[in-house]
Amino acid sequence: MEKLIITAAICGAEVTKDHNPAVPYTVEEIGREAEAAYKAGASIIHLHVRNDDGTPTQDRERFRACIEEVKRRCPDAIIQPSTGGAVGMSNEERMQPLGLNPEMATLDCGTVNFGGDEIFVNSENTIIEFGQRMIELGIKPEVEVFDKGMIDSAIRLAKKGYIREPMHFNFVLGVNGGISATVRDLSYMAGSIPSNATFTVSGIGRAQFPMAATAIAMGGHVRVGFEDNVYIAKGIPAKSNGELVEKVVRIANELGRAIATPQEAREILGMRG
Amino acid sequence: MEKLIITAAICGAEVTKDHNPAVPYTVEEIGREAEAAYKAGASIIHLHVRNDDGTPTQDRERFRACIEEVKRRCPDAIIQPSTGGAVGMSNEERMQPLGLNPEMATLDCGTVNFGGDEIFVNSENTIIEFGQRMIELGIKPEVEVFDKGMIDSAIRLAKKGYIREPMHFNFVLGVNGGISATVRDLSYMAGSIPSNATFTVSGIGRAQFPMAATAIAMGGHVRVGFEDNVYIAKGIPAKSNGELVEKVVRIANELGRAIATPQEAREILGMRG
Amino acid sequence: MEKLIITAAICGAEVTKDHNPAVPYTVEEIGREAEAAYKAGASIIHLHVRNDDGTPTQDRERFRACIEEVKRRCPDAIIQPSTGGAVGMSNEERMQPLGLNPEMATLDCGTVNFGGDEIFVNSENTIIEFGQRMIELGIKPEVEVFDKGMIDSAIRLAKKGYIREPMHFNFVLGVNGGISATVRDLSYMAGSIPSNATFTVSGIGRAQFPMAATAIAMGGHVRVGFEDNVYIAKGIPAKSNGELVEKVVRIANELGRAIATPQEAREILGMRG
Amino acid sequence: MEKLIITAAICGAEVTKDHNPAVPYTVEEIGREAEAAYKAGASIIHLHVRNDDGTPTQDRERFRACIEEVKRRCPDAIIQPSTGGAVGMSNEERMQPLGLNPEMATLDCGTVNFGGDEIFVNSENTIIEFGQRMIELGIKPEVEVFDKGMIDSAIRLAKKGYIREPMHFNFVLGVNGGISATVRDLSYMAGSIPSNATFTVSGIGRAQFPMAATAIAMGGHVRVGFEDNVYIAKGIPAKSNGELVEKVVRIANELGRAIATPQEAREILGMRG
Ligand SMILES: [Mg+2]
Ligand SMILES: [Mg+2]
Ligand SMILES: [Zn+2]
Ligand SMILES: [Zn+2]
Ligand SMILES: [Zn+2]
Ligand SMILES: [Zn+2]
Repeated sequence: MEKLIITAAICGAEVTKDHNPAVPYTVEEIGREAEAAYKAGASIIHLHVRNDDGTPTQDRERFRACIEEVKRRCPDAIIQPSTGGAVGMSNEERMQPLGLNPEMATLDCGTVNFGGDEIFVNSENTIIEFGQRMIELGIKPEVEVFDKGMIDSAIRLAKKGYIREPMHFNFVLGVNGGISATVRDLSYMAGSIPSNATFTVSGIGRAQFPMAATAIAMGGHVRVGFEDNVYIAKGIPAKSNGELVEKVVRIANELGRAIATPQEAREILGMRG
Repeated sequence: MEKLIITAAICGAEVTKDHNPAVPYTVEEIGREAEAAYKAGASIIHLHVRNDDGTPTQDRERFRACIEEVKRRCPDAIIQPSTGGAVGMSNEERMQPLGLNPEMATLDCGTVNFGGDEIFVNSENTIIEFGQRMIELGIKPEVEVFDKGMIDSAIRLAKKGYIREPMHFNFVLGVNGGISATVRDLSYMAGSIPSNATFTVSGIGRAQFPMAATAIAMGGHVRVGFEDNVYIAKGIPAKSNGELVEKVVRIANELGRAIATPQEAREILGMRG
Repeated sequence: MEKLIITAAICGAEVTKDHNPAVPYTVEEIGREAEAAYKAGASIIHLHVRNDDGTPTQDRERFRACIEEVKRRCPDAIIQPSTGGAVGMSNEERMQPLGLNPEMATLDCGTVNFGGDEIFVNSENTIIEFGQRMIELGIKPEVEVFDKGMIDSAIRLAKKGYIREPMHFNFVLGVNGGISATVRDLSYMAGSIPSNATFTVSGIGRAQFPMAATAIAMGGHVRVGFEDNVYIAKGIPAKSNGELVEKVVRIANELGRAIATPQEAREILGMRG
Repeated sequence: MEKLIITAAICGAEVTKDHNPAVPYTVEEIGREAEAAYKAGASIIHLHVRNDDGTPTQDRERFRACIEEVKRRCPDAIIQPSTGGAVGMSNEERMQPLGLNPEMATLDCGTVNFGGDEIFVNSENTIIEFGQRMIELGIKPEVEVFDKGMIDSAIRLAKKGYIREPMHFNFVLGVNGGISATVRDLSYMAGSIPSNATFTVSGIGRAQFPMAATAIAMGGHVRVGFEDNVYIAKGIPAKSNGELVEKVVRIANELGRAIATPQEAREILGMRG
């Protein structure tokens, strides 16, 4: 089997220090968490940024500062800014980090409920606009999907030339509104992507490690981090993103998967490197 | 196997006489199409209504007039008004037909892209509000889902008491933004509902009859009609909803499934009758 | 979608005139049934032969006589002798028809219970021997499988060079001892073969037409005939193999699949032609 | 999730000291390996016995001696003798350990190739005979299956009263001739058993721990041991069955599954206890 790519989603846009005091807000904290994950074995840093008070922002200068800090601490890591943004942001606001020429960035391929009144909105035209911008800028998309139909949308839009192939997917499983986080669902999602595509899985909450272990068993890849889960075990907050990555590494060791370096991850993902 | 329930979605909110001149707008036309479907074997009439110019409306009085016309022509049919409405409508506008005390009504269990800039919006709180209203009024919901995660949402909300069980699902397969219309997808969806639930499948466009045939082979049920497809065969517009239903009946005959009367449909669906 | 290949399994080794008086035993009867199937739309004649008393035989001269009769009546049909034989036959006895240089022949890829004390025995070494012989003689195998693991065996042996690719499978579904005949199973089997492979499905008994309809909906191909089922509808014996093929053609017409001629079937299957 | 039942298949009938010098042959060695597995967390000891030279036997007295030794060392463990036997044994020879009134015993539900010329033969009539004997003697069967169709056979025979329900399955995945050992296959098998059934999975060879981890993630149960795999990691022979069980326990700990005691296992399996 291929070596295992671990993506660390160290921050997210919604989880706060109330959930876990180690959730990073400041540039320094972002750097600290990225470094802990990187040293533990993460090759990709999936990056949201916050204002110092913890509110989410897509501000390009904030992204610039954070990316520089992450690069300083994790020289060869692949940095993957999120274009998810927050409710009410325009597409241009959301796309600001693309202007910093990152190697990767997220491309959310559909609209999905997030519980209560919250809806994560990405119309087809938005997907097309983001996908085309990434093609123009030579940025590898991480195709983020919350349900099976989003894979179908991504494949359809890739065929039309709006998303570059081979595609790398992230399956977010277990959101209230998306597909649930079961082995059956993960197996179905993985069987639905093109044969030249790759994937990571993000299990939300307590599904994080069961989904990670299953992906490792399948030959897939794994995303962990505070964005998706803040506990190292039931009821026990993780001390850092590094601790979450270490746990994935231990499971991978048990199952005989070696961990990919950032350079090996670039090769597996078909990136310029 | 159980007898086959055929739901006729005779009108929809989006398809027009430009797509097929037999698409009904007026009360008279709605009645004509419902009757054709009913005589051909449909036991459930899934109902959207239009103004005379074809624009969609959720107006209660328009629903009242159409339902009376359908009842006159199809005395024992199960009438299932849509609560889908159109972009920009409030929940109260969308729920107007519930006030007419129909036996069934649609309950859309999530938000999904419909292509271009169009999004069909049903937040979790909207689902809860509609589900509770139907429980209060004793209306059997047709749980409409466009992707696997919507089934998971419906199950989760039913467990919390917001949707009455046993649930009857309609899988809409092949929308640009939802799960695709393949045998694999249909089999997966059918395997994802509770063991006491029932389902129909709506294949969009040219998927209508392949999905119908597969559902018949599975022991599931079928929805057809102009809302989902206006062609009787490739490139040939259907003359009426009745012609579409007749085709499903012929396929059912080939596969040895008898057609349920409205009364038999009520029993299969666990309705008061 | 590709045109539909219909294989007619007109005779089998076990079904008798007691099951249906139209089951063919003599050379003349074999010819009559093959012709009826061919005229109705079958492009492949899957062939077992019998002695005049109905007992199964793998005798080369009996195969020669039957093949000549079939060729006389169905000039361009693809003739596919069975190598299945009967209990207690040696491999050489079973392989006799291969000496007649047919275009195709069956290659059973595993051992499976047939109910009671009966076991259809094909050890791995037998599969290898038959597969190699077909490679030497330039005969396209129809890889016959009764369970999912047999697909895995075929793929493993093909990788080792014992079965020529691309492979054409026949999924026999619903034997007592093999995988059951459900849409879920058919979908799973079809999703388990290599991307360059093709398949027909044989549903046993009353599963024949539901499995055929589903395969048509999937873009797969269909085998029907007295070997698998002797009824045209519940409790009504089919008058001929032609009547069974006609029913498949009607279903295909309803679902918009055109029927492949023998020459088109050769192209779809990647045969020399 | 339920606590995790670990079955230790400490010996098997085919693996030898040439594969791993810790494979047990003598009564003392069997006892040693059972104890190591039990102390590490196994609640069920799946038991084959050997003559002192390592050849397999179904001799009742040898089983008696081994069972006594295992009971002495593992007082409350569930002991599950195999009725698999070896090629050429009669059903009565194979069923000898049933006469010792064990709590459980294996019931192989079909015939499958084992590679080369080897076939593991269990006709339908054999399954019925073994199943009925276990019902008469009040022995809980471990329904052993090597392919999907064997599950279907077990369900069919249980409906006819030949196998007592609820059934506990062991999925043996990855035998040359059976279904392969992938997450997709395991998910499919688990989705194919009755809702009141339980299962363990045995991944053969290097699939042992990936399949174990996936079963843990699914809420299923696990079988490990020398019968299925003799390596603790790639190229490194396990020192004992205990070491293999310890590894499963570590993975379960990472995934938050507690380990069932023998008494808890009896409750989960619906046994008299
Ligand atoms: Mg969705
Ligand atoms: Mg088998
Ligand atoms: Zn994110
Ligand atoms: Zn509608
Ligand atoms: Zn045959
Ligand atoms: Zn065993």
